[in-house]
Amino acid sequence: MSTSVKGTSVIKSSLIDPDGGTLVDLVVPQNERASKRAEAESMPKVKISKIDLEWVHVISEGWANPLRGFMREDEYLQSLHFNCLKLKDGTVVNMSLPIVLAIHDKDKEVIGASSDVGLIGPNGDLIGILRSVQVYKHNKEERIARTWGTTAPRLPYVEEVISPAGNWLIGGDLEVLEPIKYNDGLDHYRLSPCELRKEFDRRQADAVFAFQLRNPVHNGHALLMNDTRKRLLEMGYKNPILLLHPLGGFTKADDVPLDVRMEQHSKVLEDGVLDPETTIVAIFPSPMHYAGPTEVQWHAKARINAGANFYIVGRDPAGMSHPIEKRDLYDPDHGKKVLSMAPGLEKLNILLFKVAAYDTVEKKMAFFDPSRAKDFLFISGTKMRTYARNGENPPDGFMCPGGWQVLVKYYGSLQSEEAGPQSAVLSA
Amino acid sequence: MSTSVKGTSVIKSSLIDPDGGTLVDLVVPQNERASKRAEAESMPKVKISKIDLEWVHVISEGWANPLRGFMREDEYLQSLHFNCLKLKDGTVVNMSLPIVLAIHDKDKEVIGASSDVGLIGPNGDLIGILRSVQVYKHNKEERIARTWGTTAPRLPYVEEVISPAGNWLIGGDLEVLEPIKYNDGLDHYRLSPCELRKEFDRRQADAVFAFQLRNPVHNGHALLMNDTRKRLLEMGYKNPILLLHPLGGFTKADDVPLDVRMEQHSKVLEDGVLDPETTIVAIFPSPMHYAGPTEVQWHAKARINAGANFYIVGRDPAGMSHPIEKRDLYDPDHGKKVLSMAPGLEKLNILLFKVAAYDTVEKKMAFFDPSRAKDFLFISGTKMRTYARNGENPPDGFMCPGGWQVLVKYYGSLQSEEAGPQSAVLSA
Repeated sequence: MSTSVKGTSVIKSSLIDPDGGTLVDLVVPQNERASKRAEAESMPKVKISKIDLEWVHVISEGWANPLRGFMREDEYLQSLHFNCLKLKDGTVVNMSLPIVLAIHDKDKEVIGASSDVGLIGPNGDLIGILRSVQVYKHNKEERIARTWGTTAPRLPYVEEVISPAGNWLIGGDLEVLEPIKYNDGLDHYRLSPCELRKEFDRRQADAVFAFQLRNPVHNGHALLMNDTRKRLLEMGYKNPILLLHPLGGFTKADDVPLDVRMEQHSKVLEDGVLDPETTIVAIFPSPMHYAGPTEVQWHAKARINAGANFYIVGRDPAGMSHPIEKRDLYDPDHGKKVLSMAPGLEKLNILLFKVAAYDTVEKKMAFFDPSRAKDFLFISGTKMRTYARNGENPPDGFMCPGGWQVLVKYYGSLQSEEAGPQSAVLSA
Repeated sequence: MSTSVKGTSVIKSSLIDPDGGTLVDLVVPQNERASKRAEAESMPKVKISKIDLEWVHVISEGWANPLRGFMREDEYLQSLHFNCLKLKDGTVVNMSLPIVLAIHDKDKEVIGASSDVGLIGPNGDLIGILRSVQVYKHNKEERIARTWGTTAPRLPYVEEVISPAGNWLIGGDLEVLEPIKYNDGLDHYRLSPCELRKEFDRRQADAVFAFQLRNPVHNGHALLMNDTRKRLLEMGYKNPILLLHPLGGFTKADDVPLDVRMEQHSKVLEDGVLDPETTIVAIFPSPMHYAGPTEVQWHAKARINAGANFYIVGRDPAGMSHPIEKRDLYDPDHGKKVLSMAPGLEKLNILLFKVAAYDTVEKKMAFFDPSRAKDFLFISGTKMRTYARNGENPPDGFMCPGGWQVLVKYYGSLQSEEAGPQSAVLSA
């Protein structure tokens, strides 16, 4: 692993973000909720989707700090064209994904000239308020082209979210009536940036290195994370803490669902592949765009807001295959290059990772050694799924047995559902 | 006209660019040309197109300062994702268009591991040298999507330049063996940034306001430019100079060709619509992308490098109709909004223009007054062309008679060519 360290300062505890501002917390205090709710009841209302609600969650907890709500047009244009926002004091903060709320013509009519709007969640509950709203055009083609660098059909987030959305965007300051909960048995994993910072303090971390993932953890990942910790100790840090931070929002249908991943991650810690003493497992509530170099900036930026100061980045972060051509959608090296040059991320320490593969001689996952390339076996996601589906075991040492069993069970259940009278929709 | 002035300092004369660096001049001094030419003869060579040569011209004179050649990948990625470059000293300079040279597979083979490459112009002449080259992938789809915000077919620059181009880009430091000349009778209009700055000094300008155009000047434009001068005088400037700066590189086929436009602009000054004492007419050698908000930044940035400190921006700058949908490709207000927020252009004073239209009561071009909207006639480019084609006169006061006759003659010649045995290719 090659390490590029731009600063060596020990992280500051507390709720101050790295750009000097206070971390935003947009959840209404308990004693004001009844009156705010009453006020919101009298406002024009807009119904939001499950994925919109994930963004409400993200914004409300300060992951997108200093954003205080869905973007107004000035923020949207800066995000789209410059991948960053310039604040009034001249500070530049990274903001690579447009975090926007789309509405339909009829919503726009209902809102009329009102400055405040109530937000209704997918279950019909009043979720929050958007204040001093601005409604502006949603040019989907331009948004997609500038965010993904393609307008090819079948981009998962575009198909799920943007294509069916309305032709208007509504920006404004967000107030959330209650902390967002999913009641899926995983809420205890959903630590806010505030809670994560407190936990890092409690553990007296002097370095926090974040690992973003949306896949099961195999021993190659574990090797990398353990190696990173070793490197940080060698650099002089006394107590580096790993933030193992799976993405919990929208993912594409063939990704492994969140609950299965969380169970798999638990086993990896139970089996001792990662050390629970120096690892925090938490869920990052953002939906996934699969927007490669544009999205990896968001993934890193959000983790800085949560108190991480080292970010691990590998091959083709947030990438996928081109939906209609036989190639990667993004140059696999662009993610780390763009991340290393991104405005507003200058203070981030980027850790590049060496490729790990299965060493058939040593019978374990190891860093790839090009001098004996033939000894190494690359086990792709597809290959892994094939093993799990067929109930076959992967080579010894590829993944801890407890974690592997979780996947076998998941793919088994999938097959029996597929074989049953009704085929299952896997996720999203 | 609403005026947004971010600074009031008198412009600094000299060849120092606004970011503190010296203006690049990449033309080899006369006494070194023979030896450089001999050296270049021994290098692998790449043939470049007419439009590539326009970029060589642009780069060599410092319009794209501090760029010293065609972009290497780091510069390309920053331009594509952030519309700006961060220099080693931390300075951020605007750079919204990728200024790149595409080559084909066979060129890449010829270059092999050579670090320097000779550039052969469209006429077969040795033009210059590219030093310490880097060859990297040309992902056309991504370049187009991120630059234009669409991948629709029939974008003029894409059809003319990008689609037929090779799958590789080559970056490197440029050396040009001779100043670029076109020998079309218009070279005396092609003042370099250096020459323009000297001319502004000679005239003792204390403010320079630039007007970018690629169309004939009608009296609405003239009203705006004269009004701007009046405003600058009111602001306390003693000698504001207008840089009337038509774009001279590639334009789409239905734009009026450069030679006709230059003749028309001359008449506008001869007829006294613009004052020759306070106006400099020169050609901006860049090709046109028609990339709206992305391109207007380039148009403004290049003029700053030439010594302008005020830039006039109107509705939908560098925009066009969507090539396949019935709408403007860009939101007509995005250009000025994006320009006002663009990184690296903070020091630019942006002058927004009020809409001018033909006032049928006063019988002249005037600023549109919404309180008597029905008195105003909007004369579009299409309408203007129809008048000229049919030999009809536009309403009195729309354009000075001398200028109008130039257009009548041009469209007349077009029709006779179209009627003749061979139809003419208009431009490009």
